[in-house]
Amino acid sequence: MHKGFILWFTGLSGAGKSTLSAHIEKLFRDRGFRVELLDGDEVRTHLSKGLGFSKEDRDTNVLRIGYVARLLARNGVIAITAAISPYRETRDAIRDEARRDGIPFIEVYANATVDALSKRDVKGLYKRALAGEIAHFTGVSDPYEPPLNPEVEVHTDQEAVEESVVRIVKFLTDHQLIQ
Amino acid sequence: MHKGFILWFTGLSGAGKSTLSAHIEKLFRDRGFRVELLDGDEVRTHLSKGLGFSKEDRDTNVLRIGYVARLLARNGVIAITAAISPYRETRDAIRDEARRDGIPFIEVYANATVDALSKRDVKGLYKRALAGEIAHFTGVSDPYEPPLNPEVEVHTDQEAVEESVVRIVKFLTDHQLIQ
Repeated sequence: MHKGFILWFTGLSGAGKSTLSAHIEKLFRDRGFRVELLDGDEVRTHLSKGLGFSKEDRDTNVLRIGYVARLLARNGVIAITAAISPYRETRDAIRDEARRDGIPFIEVYANATVDALSKRDVKGLYKRALAGEIAHFTGVSDPYEPPLNPEVEVHTDQEAVEESVVRIVKFLTDHQLIQ
Repeated sequence: MHKGFILWFTGLSGAGKSTLSAHIEKLFRDRGFRVELLDGDEVRTHLSKGLGFSKEDRDTNVLRIGYVARLLARNGVIAITAAISPYRETRDAIRDEARRDGIPFIEVYANATVDALSKRDVKGLYKRALAGEIAHFTGVSDPYEPPLNPEVEVHTDQEAVEESVVRIVKFLTDHQLIQ
């Protein structure tokens, strides 16, 4: 029914990583696929308590997620991750390690501009970050390095969740990762 | 061919956890089972770099191993762990969480006395620990709480590796966890 692979979401806070990944997890679970969602917050609780938001700590967190995702994917599980994962080199390191294990690595860039996100801004975080009140806020007071060649790019500030989901699922079907 | 379950080794340093778990991993892999071995040292590199050997840090390390083992086992993988995991309450917490997920948790106590281990003492660690040169050395200068009701107990200071392996495999077969 499906292969083991890593579906790696990356993007700014509020760009839709958690929403999209939860939708896809549910879709896959309903189909009887073996799937695990490693969401940023859950992982910070279970794997990375005590880590902060410096480059080093973010990298450590992201590499741990990558390690666990590989363990799952090489055993036939679909591992979905949804951490901001702001640094390109770190994401590419995980891609390389996956490749060495023969695991497909699908990077999904949830692309939304800071401008669009600060208009939505459900939690009021962008407002505070733009006012200089939050240090290390990705895209405002901390870097975000967008993927140069993501397998899938979804413009979450311009399209509905369903459209993005369809695009992602189509990629996976076209590449025979799911049936 | 097999269910997903956690095979949790516990015991002193040098008591045979790594040796036994590697044997069983190979045996299972040769049979085509899906299996992952989370060895103490590998996990410290990938999941727990920076943690030390205080009770709190050991617990954090062991709980992380438990979290990853659960993710694997609930997807049908045999997760073998081989960390000292000296605290009974922490092991039991992982057992409880596994049970909540419907995952069989098989605790294997690699039982060897400090006396026997300090006679073998391949790395010379017991000699140094008994001389007071190593702080937080489990069983000498740090506590080890043996399991009260382990599913399997192997006396690694009295029996050959093969005997212990047979005993463990017999338990798993008798309980229909492997065929």
